[in-house]
This record gives sequence, structure tokens and C-alpha cells, in this order.
Amino acid sequence: MHYPEPISKLIDSFMKLPGIGPKTAVRLAFFVLEMKDDDVLDFGKALVNAKRQLSHCSVCYHITDRDPCSVCEDSGRDHSTICVVQDSKDVIAIEKMKDYNGLYHVLHGAISPVDGIGPEDIRVAELLKRLQDDEVKEVIIATDPTIEGEATAMYIARLIKPTGIKITRIAHGLPVGGDLEYADEVTLSKALEGRREL
Amino acid sequence: MHYPEPISKLIDSFMKLPGIGPKTAVRLAFFVLEMKDDDVLDFGKALVNAKRQLSHCSVCYHITDRDPCSVCEDSGRDHSTICVVQDSKDVIAIEKMKDYNGLYHVLHGAISPVDGIGPEDIRVAELLKRLQDDEVKEVIIATDPTIEGEATAMYIARLIKPTGIKITRIAHGLPVGGDLEYADEVTLSKALEGRREL
Repeated sequence: MHYPEPISKLIDSFMKLPGIGPKTAVRLAFFVLEMKDDDVLDFGKALVNAKRQLSHCSVCYHITDRDPCSVCEDSGRDHSTICVVQDSKDVIAIEKMKDYNGLYHVLHGAISPVDGIGPEDIRVAELLKRLQDDEVKEVIIATDPTIEGEATAMYIARLIKPTGIKITRIAHGLPVGGDLEYADEVTLSKALEGRREL
Repeated sequence: MHYPEPISKLIDSFMKLPGIGPKTAVRLAFFVLEMKDDDVLDFGKALVNAKRQLSHCSVCYHITDRDPCSVCEDSGRDHSTICVVQDSKDVIAIEKMKDYNGLYHVLHGAISPVDGIGPEDIRVAELLKRLQDDEVKEVIIATDPTIEGEATAMYIARLIKPTGIKITRIAHGLPVGGDLEYADEVTLSKALEGRREL
């Protein structure tokens, strides 16, 4: 015997989560046994409901519990600007900032030939289709500042250029609160390149 | 808007687990959305089942899905030896070693006046009751090598002594594979004190 079956099943489930190894899984499983009944029940329900009730918005592909999502539906937002991001978590990050009032487009990935992810595996075609609408005046490309994110940004920019819609890329540079001394060369070079007049 | 409700509920549930802060909770919740339907359903079921089906063995208080637990029930084990531990995870650790063939007694804590935990808050009385049975010949005290664990060991030893049952404490010393140079003074002193003839 090692663990009684109900707990070993729970340990197995925890181990499927990212960053949770066998020891943490055991600790979490035993913690669950000490939790209040209601909390555990809520947890179980939350898991299943999140999976069942959430889907992707048919317009912007952001994660949502209704279609179209609350951002696309909001007539108070600027429908002429679309910010292109890699995944739903990026939308949340930008929304938290409260400075952006346009729409989004979630690609669900970035082009990465090494991993076999091509333009057809992410929501690029859907973005181009949205742009056929005359309303869109600017596309802000906010993919991650990684090789894959940059490649995706370049690819999308090249596709959109002929339409005459304004395309911008979010700035790369030193993070606020960061230390110039410890910045890597590429970031520093991008920061210098992107310098603005004061 | 920040998160759609189903996912914010899931994030809240993850945040109730130990060592999981807001950022990890978000990461885990989004991971769940990408998991297979069946895996999520199994996870939800495992949570609820672990909580519902597991209880403490009425003999040794180890966590179990039947009563008495598989250890107490096993007639092939040595019923004359009881190993006293602080919690169920300790039983699992000792069982993994496969060297011990006796029974267990899980205290579910250790005496700690600072935290207001007295002998009546842990399963000491239940242990003494088990010892009234003539069968028990040795009690091995395997509480943690901490102040609380030591205090609990001392307390239990003093209570059992009058019954004439043999009481032992697991050895303190250098962990195998450890480095003498980096051992703390207390461990080193215990290792010296517990030296054995070769």
C-alpha cells in the first residue's frame, strides 16, 4: 500500500498541472483533506464549470462566458482599433492597465517553425477577415517580445500593409523600475533605437 | 471587467491552496481551460471523492478509505509494535521504506504550548487506550526532530513508562549523503551522543 485510492487519484490530478511535481501534489492533496467540505465542493464545481461554460468569443477569440464577449459587445469602446495579442492572459494584463479602450484579437499562439506552428495554426486568417470591415483604422501588434512573437508581428504586418490600415508595434525598451546596468544587450539596443525626443 | 466569472471562481479556489499565489492561480486556471474535458472532470471528481470517501482509521487514525485501515487489518504485520507519528504523511514515508512491519499511531499534531496545542488536542489518550491491550510490546516514537516533536516524545514516554512497555525513539544524526561540514551543531551533538560501536 502507498496511498488510499481516492487520495492517489487526487495526487495524480494535481500532478497534471504545470509546475506541480510529486511532492507538491502530495502536499496539496493532504491540504484538500483538511479543507472545509463546502470549499472542496466549490473547487470541484469551479473546475468543471470553467471548462464547460467558457468558450472563445467568435469575434476576437478572447475567452468568454458569452458570445460575443463583453469587450466586443461594449459600444463605449473604440471599434476602430484592434490590439493583437498571443493569448487571453495578455488581454487581461492590458485590461488591468485601464488605459486601452479599443478591441482585441487573440491569436492563441505565435508562429514558431521549430515547434511546427505555422500561420494557419493561429488566428491570423480570422484577423484579416475582421479587417475587411471598413471600421478598423489601426492594428496594434502586441505579441510577446520573443523571437516567435517578433516573427508573428512581422508576418502580420506584411499581410496588412497592402490594406492601408495603420499598423503599430508596442514599444520595446527598459521596463519601468528596471536597472540599465542589468539590462540585456538586445533590450538596451531596442531602447536606444526607440528613443523619443523630450 | 477582469476575468469572466467561471474562471475567476476557479482562480479563487486555486488561491486557497498553500503556496499558490494570485499569479500561479491564474496560470493554473488557464491551464485547466486547455486540458482535456475528461481530465478536468476526473480532477473535479477526485477532489470531491477524496474529501467524501476518506476518513481516519478508528484504531490508528491514519487516513483511510475503509475502517480499520489496511495496515491495522493486515494480520501479516507485527501487532506488538506501534510506531507513533505526527501525521499521515509520515506513515506513507515509513511505508515507502518497506523496512517496518509493525502498526502505527497517528497523533495528528504535536504538543506546542506556543500554538495552544496541548496533549488533549492530539491523539495521546487513544494511544494509551491501545496500550492497555497486552499484545503491545514496543512503542517507537517517530515524531519530528523539532522542539514540538521532542516535547511530544518526552511527554508520551513519561506516560507509558509505568506500564513497563518498551519505548524507543528513532535516531537523530547525520542524514545519509549529508556533509559533516555543513551539519548544524545540534544534529552533530546528537550524532555524537548516539554513536554506536562498530
